[in-house]
Amino acid sequence: MELIPVTTRSRNEMVEITSAVERVVRKRGIREGVAVLQSLHTTGALTINENADPDVKHDVVAKMGELVPHADSYYRHAEGNSDSHVKTSMFGPSLTIIVSEGKLMLGQWQGIYFCEWDGPRERKVAVQVMADT
Amino acid sequence: MELIPVTTRSRNEMVEITSAVERVVRKRGIREGVAVLQSLHTTGALTINENADPDVKHDVVAKMGELVPHADSYYRHAEGNSDSHVKTSMFGPSLTIIVSEGKLMLGQWQGIYFCEWDGPRERKVAVQVMADT
Amino acid sequence: MELIPVTTRSRNEMVEITSAVERVVRKRGIREGVAVLQSLHTTGALTINENADPDVKHDVVAKMGELVPHADSYYRHAEGNSDSHVKTSMFGPSLTIIVSEGKLMLGQWQGIYFCEWDGPRERKVAVQVMADT
Repeated sequence: MELIPVTTRSRNEMVEITSAVERVVRKRGIREGVAVLQSLHTTGALTINENADPDVKHDVVAKMGELVPHADSYYRHAEGNSDSHVKTSMFGPSLTIIVSEGKLMLGQWQGIYFCEWDGPRERKVAVQVMADT
Repeated sequence: MELIPVTTRSRNEMVEITSAVERVVRKRGIREGVAVLQSLHTTGALTINENADPDVKHDVVAKMGELVPHADSYYRHAEGNSDSHVKTSMFGPSLTIIVSEGKLMLGQWQGIYFCEWDGPRERKVAVQVMADT
Repeated sequence: MELIPVTTRSRNEMVEITSAVERVVRKRGIREGVAVLQSLHTTGALTINENADPDVKHDVVAKMGELVPHADSYYRHAEGNSDSHVKTSMFGPSLTIIVSEGKLMLGQWQGIYFCEWDGPRERKVAVQVMADT
């Protein structure tokens, strides 16, 4: 298991971590298998989305902020970040990516993102590379 | 593969199953690997979220109920639980959690939850522990 | 690793791929393990949901279209498919399903779906079957 540190700079943002995950997979040196990624936080999620036009990140973060605004009248959690917890469960805390022929298998436009929903913070993503035997 | 039974008591609620999953992992006795969890139901999901303040569960369930109310004019499914199916796909039916140094790897505030979206019911969560060799 | 081709026929629809995934698992011939599925696209997701009443698919797709409409005033992405990217991250790009006693483990009503959010298109789902040793 390896930890990838992620520094986030806004309350809500998507930070690409593709090359850090590729490094962990390369170091392990398997041919076929999977890489399991896990956010170790309850207000930060993981996803795969477009890595070409940065406007996609903007639009995804904006839509999630519209669906799940920072404050809502019925929220009870005193920390005031209930929206961050909701968004984290909606995108999901873990991600499994196929490794094939020694490489992380990603479609042409796919990049791996840590989704910060309560930043800025120092975050950690755990990666477990599993070989298919 | 092991099955964890979960008894739910409301139509919508998050039931923590962390210690039951830890028991399955301990019993299997691996050092490094992953635990794959799967809800065997189409109206109950799995997630990881905060295990400290119970108000977080309240707020997550409340927000999901606001986004996806029980009834909607365009719903066709005669059973009347289309909302439960939508929420299940939004949170996801399966979850992969890293096992490292013999322990389920969870951040300080992370707990594992079965999300009941159409209870109360008797539910089952399947767990497959996979060793990294 | 095997690729499953999926042809979609609408902009938004859920296409069942359960038997194609079962074929890949059977071919591999393991007893215990998991099947990891990954959409290789940023506007198409994977989920498990009901395989009995087709109205469930209708209702899930309709609700997602209501929550995340095609157009929104604040969208910047010039391709005009920001909604597709948001829905893909909400449902998730990958799925891990348990294999036990040689069979894909699915509950009585569970089917595996490719969720097209920007069709019609030709799509690919990658499947990595991992044996538990």
